[in-house]
Amino acid sequence: MPKRNAFYAQSGGVTAVINASACGVIETARRHKAHIGKLYAGRNGILGALDEELIDTSRESAQAIAALKHTPGGAFGSARYKLKGLDQNRAEYERLIEVFRAHDIGYFFYNGGGDSADTCLKVSQLGAALGYPLTAIHVPKTVDNDLPITDTCPGFGSVAKYIAVSTREAALDVVSMSRTSTKVFILEVMGRHAGWIAAAAGLAGRRAGEAPHIILFPEITFDRAAFLARIQDCVRRHGYCVIVVSEGVRNPDGRFLADAGTTDAFGHAQLGGVATVIASMVRQELKLKYHFAIADYLQRSARHIASKVDVEQAYAVGKAAVELAVKGRNAVMPTIVRHRDRPYRWTIGEAPLAKVANREKMMPRRFITPDGFGITVAARRYLEPLIQGEAYPPYRAGLPDYVTLRNVGVRRKLPPRG
Amino acid sequence: MPKRNAFYAQSGGVTAVINASACGVIETARRHKAHIGKLYAGRNGILGALDEELIDTSRESAQAIAALKHTPGGAFGSARYKLKGLDQNRAEYERLIEVFRAHDIGYFFYNGGGDSADTCLKVSQLGAALGYPLTAIHVPKTVDNDLPITDTCPGFGSVAKYIAVSTREAALDVVSMSRTSTKVFILEVMGRHAGWIAAAAGLAGRRAGEAPHIILFPEITFDRAAFLARIQDCVRRHGYCVIVVSEGVRNPDGRFLADAGTTDAFGHAQLGGVATVIASMVRQELKLKYHFAIADYLQRSARHIASKVDVEQAYAVGKAAVELAVKGRNAVMPTIVRHRDRPYRWTIGEAPLAKVANREKMMPRRFITPDGFGITVAARRYLEPLIQGEAYPPYRAGLPDYVTLRNVGVRRKLPPRG
Repeated sequence: MPKRNAFYAQSGGVTAVINASACGVIETARRHKAHIGKLYAGRNGILGALDEELIDTSRESAQAIAALKHTPGGAFGSARYKLKGLDQNRAEYERLIEVFRAHDIGYFFYNGGGDSADTCLKVSQLGAALGYPLTAIHVPKTVDNDLPITDTCPGFGSVAKYIAVSTREAALDVVSMSRTSTKVFILEVMGRHAGWIAAAAGLAGRRAGEAPHIILFPEITFDRAAFLARIQDCVRRHGYCVIVVSEGVRNPDGRFLADAGTTDAFGHAQLGGVATVIASMVRQELKLKYHFAIADYLQRSARHIASKVDVEQAYAVGKAAVELAVKGRNAVMPTIVRHRDRPYRWTIGEAPLAKVANREKMMPRRFITPDGFGITVAARRYLEPLIQGEAYPPYRAGLPDYVTLRNVGVRRKLPPRG
Repeated sequence: MPKRNAFYAQSGGVTAVINASACGVIETARRHKAHIGKLYAGRNGILGALDEELIDTSRESAQAIAALKHTPGGAFGSARYKLKGLDQNRAEYERLIEVFRAHDIGYFFYNGGGDSADTCLKVSQLGAALGYPLTAIHVPKTVDNDLPITDTCPGFGSVAKYIAVSTREAALDVVSMSRTSTKVFILEVMGRHAGWIAAAAGLAGRRAGEAPHIILFPEITFDRAAFLARIQDCVRRHGYCVIVVSEGVRNPDGRFLADAGTTDAFGHAQLGGVATVIASMVRQELKLKYHFAIADYLQRSARHIASKVDVEQAYAVGKAAVELAVKGRNAVMPTIVRHRDRPYRWTIGEAPLAKVANREKMMPRRFITPDGFGITVAARRYLEPLIQGEAYPPYRAGLPDYVTLRNVGVRRKLPPRG
């Protein structure tokens, strides 16, 4: 195979460890100079390809690239931008190929979730159809943990750890004040469709009666009466109640609990406030003193308490993506294969993108207790390995020493897209 | 001095390091067996004394007590309970003395903020008036950082570190997504009266243009027009805007911005939602996509990212309290005395409680930039030393290994209080 350039882009919501995957891709590409020339990154993800805004990663020092492993966020910029189907917007795909051709890009590494796996597959198909040879590899990433086949998705383990740690800590605060102050504490976590993150909070408690006492999953239809009764029972028994609620919890009518009928500037239902809805319920129905926290972006950017396993897996899938590419594999995604729970043993496998794209892995019902408010032993067995180990970033002047890359642009060769 | 027992109680909102102070008190008391017999702790703070619910700390192993140094929350329970003035409720103070007398308690260590300094002083005065010899020492603690004389208050440095770290991390997330997603991110932090915690967020940015771009302090009256203009300007220049807002921000009419006229079950204005007020403004006036986080209890319980300096100071004031007591000092509080900013040099001093009680240390105006939206070099010089160093707790199975004490009760000697 002649030496060709490569393109790497970050897609969708960023995580505490997506840059660790970038680090794996870049460091490994640098070790395969026989196959891979320049490695370009897309400025703001796939938009960087469409707009021909390429970043030359060879202008970054080995030290700066190594520091990506401990830096959260998306170092080159990411984008929420889904390419439409081939028939609806073939021009966009053709533009991608045009840019790739102009810069002799033969490798496409796309780092994202389900949507980007789909895009990655289509780009590889169109390359073939247009007679432009292209190796397209998807690098898995999503805090939602909803990609199929792979044991877990890089990014999830660190959110899981952050939420479990935060729940344990806040619970210690609440219990110690409960005699005279807050009785009910509510923590809102991410997860619009799947309750993986909310489930992770369940790891905070080990013994019966320990927090969290109630978890609300998007998979379980909200039952107001049962929920309120459970809070009362919990406060009566333990003196306090810690609730973890997923932003995606729905009413029996199928609407988000947090959806007050308002939409954001883009017409999406504006969520992110289910905690306030729960809090109002607690106030009005139970007259109990409450507090609530909304973790929001803090949870997915908390590199300071990232899971070591997660960082290692994120790096490993980036590395494997390049190795698969130079071995001539195409339209695949490196996966994490679990061999054992305790101690956790995993290796890297691979999955064809056709089997990954557009398939969401929901939480199995057997991971949720029959009453719908907690996690089972099976869930614990699955989740616990993913939060093992601490991979602390270096600190300077009391703060994590995160890297900002130079992100030097590549000279354009094409006219702007129309 | 004959050997007498001691009483220790935690007061008000707990912190990530109040147990480190408890550890300092208990370990030091155990080294002064010639003066101090049993060390009792109040179950749920001062209520433990009023209700004669004493915990025998001698039933805890040295190992368990040592683990307090890395455990957040209040290990014996704390209380939001302010004793009224002597004239209004003399009976309550007399009950305290009665319980102390029944258990031969000659030392009173009260670990809290301004209110508890006041209580501590009154208890010592009443002891003298009733001819009951009592040594009362206040151990400083408050995330609000508003006690006078002492350089800082144990508990604050760790919140400051957590908020600065979280702001830096969330900002990396927001900037990387800003081209196609969230433009404005709002983080709500504690601070009803003083903006110390909000100010600490300012440490996250080192260079011009770095987040946070806007800080809203309780000390600065909210100026809606200037605020909105600043957001627009920031988004135009940088593509995104990170706002840190203190829960105590007030409108020109003096009302809390977060105060929608609702009160909690106890009649207090129910705050904790100023982020939602700001978010609505951003949506309605600027039509920008936003996200918000509310750190709430997560910030003051985040022992996993506590400041090492803070942990050391918390322990040191606990230790000093006992040493002052056995030296015969009374109605005083150990303080932290700053000798140098960089590197931070501090020692323990002492202040008479009469000069501590009921005096709030507000943030000086010179710590806030003239426009009211940021912190000055002077603020940075003050704050930076307080977040230095990481004092990570030990981990087990991926989670911090926090201790739960046995908290064995002491047999009652008195009838229940009326």
